[in-house]
Amino acid sequence: MLKVVKIGGNVVDNPEKLTSFLEDFAALEGPKVLVHGGGKIATTISKALGIETQMIEGRRVTDAQTLDVVTMVYAGLVNKKIVARLQGLRVNAFGLCGADGSLMPSLKRIPNPIDFGYVGDPIVERFSVSTAQMLIDSGYTLVVAPITHAGTGMLLNTNADTVAQTVAVALSGVYEVELVYCFEKKGVLSDINDEYSVIPRITLPEYELLKKSGVVVAGMIPKLDNAFKAIASGVKSVVICGSDAIAAPGYGGTKLVGE
Amino acid sequence: MLKVVKIGGNVVDNPEKLTSFLEDFAALEGPKVLVHGGGKIATTISKALGIETQMIEGRRVTDAQTLDVVTMVYAGLVNKKIVARLQGLRVNAFGLCGADGSLMPSLKRIPNPIDFGYVGDPIVERFSVSTAQMLIDSGYTLVVAPITHAGTGMLLNTNADTVAQTVAVALSGVYEVELVYCFEKKGVLSDINDEYSVIPRITLPEYELLKKSGVVVAGMIPKLDNAFKAIASGVKSVVICGSDAIAAPGYGGTKLVGE
Repeated sequence: MLKVVKIGGNVVDNPEKLTSFLEDFAALEGPKVLVHGGGKIATTISKALGIETQMIEGRRVTDAQTLDVVTMVYAGLVNKKIVARLQGLRVNAFGLCGADGSLMPSLKRIPNPIDFGYVGDPIVERFSVSTAQMLIDSGYTLVVAPITHAGTGMLLNTNADTVAQTVAVALSGVYEVELVYCFEKKGVLSDINDEYSVIPRITLPEYELLKKSGVVVAGMIPKLDNAFKAIASGVKSVVICGSDAIAAPGYGGTKLVGE
Repeated sequence: MLKVVKIGGNVVDNPEKLTSFLEDFAALEGPKVLVHGGGKIATTISKALGIETQMIEGRRVTDAQTLDVVTMVYAGLVNKKIVARLQGLRVNAFGLCGADGSLMPSLKRIPNPIDFGYVGDPIVERFSVSTAQMLIDSGYTLVVAPITHAGTGMLLNTNADTVAQTVAVALSGVYEVELVYCFEKKGVLSDINDEYSVIPRITLPEYELLKKSGVVVAGMIPKLDNAFKAIASGVKSVVICGSDAIAAPGYGGTKLVGE
């Protein structure tokens, strides 16, 4: 079983959480891939460099200068710090972005109706399974930054959840894959006000019922819809759990499965 | 023959030179590795972030904040831009730093008599020949950023000339290696005032004579001493040439050989 684990800003931005997460991740047995987001460091550095952050409908526009900053921060600072620290924990980590070995070619999003700039959507069929497989089968733990490329010389900023999902789906042809999203909450809750009301396991038919009955809150629906799409595309299971839970068996979170 | 080509700031900082260099490099036949320096971008970004650059005896001190900046710029921005552009030129480039797959472990320089901070000197015996060989033999072109690691979780800033030399020496056990330093001048000149006075070939005995006779200018001696050390350690030849010359047969520069 190959585990593809995704962490976001809530872990990357918090030194204590990151340290504790990396120790747990290092202890995970079997082949594994880590996909990380960038956190707030990119915004801090953009500000310091006097680059204005333009938001449209709550989403960041990636102009040429912002692309430089996210490339530096995600594929440089965050990626290499994680790699060095995992090496220090005796994990043979190997950092890369979607341009390296053409791991993840993507398509620049069409500028219509909204021009988000240098943002790419991965083309899962063009993911380089051979690059990833060579490294994984040689015992390396991939650490993937959410920067992809168009194949024409252009780098593209890419959503880290989507990067994790693309890695998981593309590799499900050669491995049994579990995709683990580390999240602010402990899992999918049956009561939004009770953080201990984690639903341990949800099948696709159960999910349809939970959606109809309104138990799953609106904000979770796109995430869960995508998770079930990954399962429909070959991923064995998707786990949504807290970043402090990956060392526990079953991760203490919610496991989504087809049936 | 594996070619290890090193470019410095004079190429990285100049968009036209970089474009023309990458086209020439893409056209080079056979397996090849590119080692790049960082150029002035790190200094510009340090200034913008309000990080003071401290110099001792003409050399930059790498404090924790400066290490973050060089990691971002060298292993992130410069490395990934070069990788994406080579991919656009149909070269299957793969960017990495010395922490990735523990390619290049190094030793933090002792803080005595001068504390240069987070600066590392590569341990050639601990270079991961297997990581490099796996990638090179699978057809990837390595693009190496001058950031190494101590193996304890710590990244270290490392001189790019030394990184190139370490790659060349370490891989000379498994390949016939030519190390190519792209340089501001066209090669080793017999007359410092005549840029066309390039000496095409220098053997070690000839070099000893040139040094004695004062033909080789003082500034070139450390570079040439290191080149002949690389040759003594197994590298077949070292070429010193202009960055616009790598496409030409013999590079139009100076070829250093043992005998």
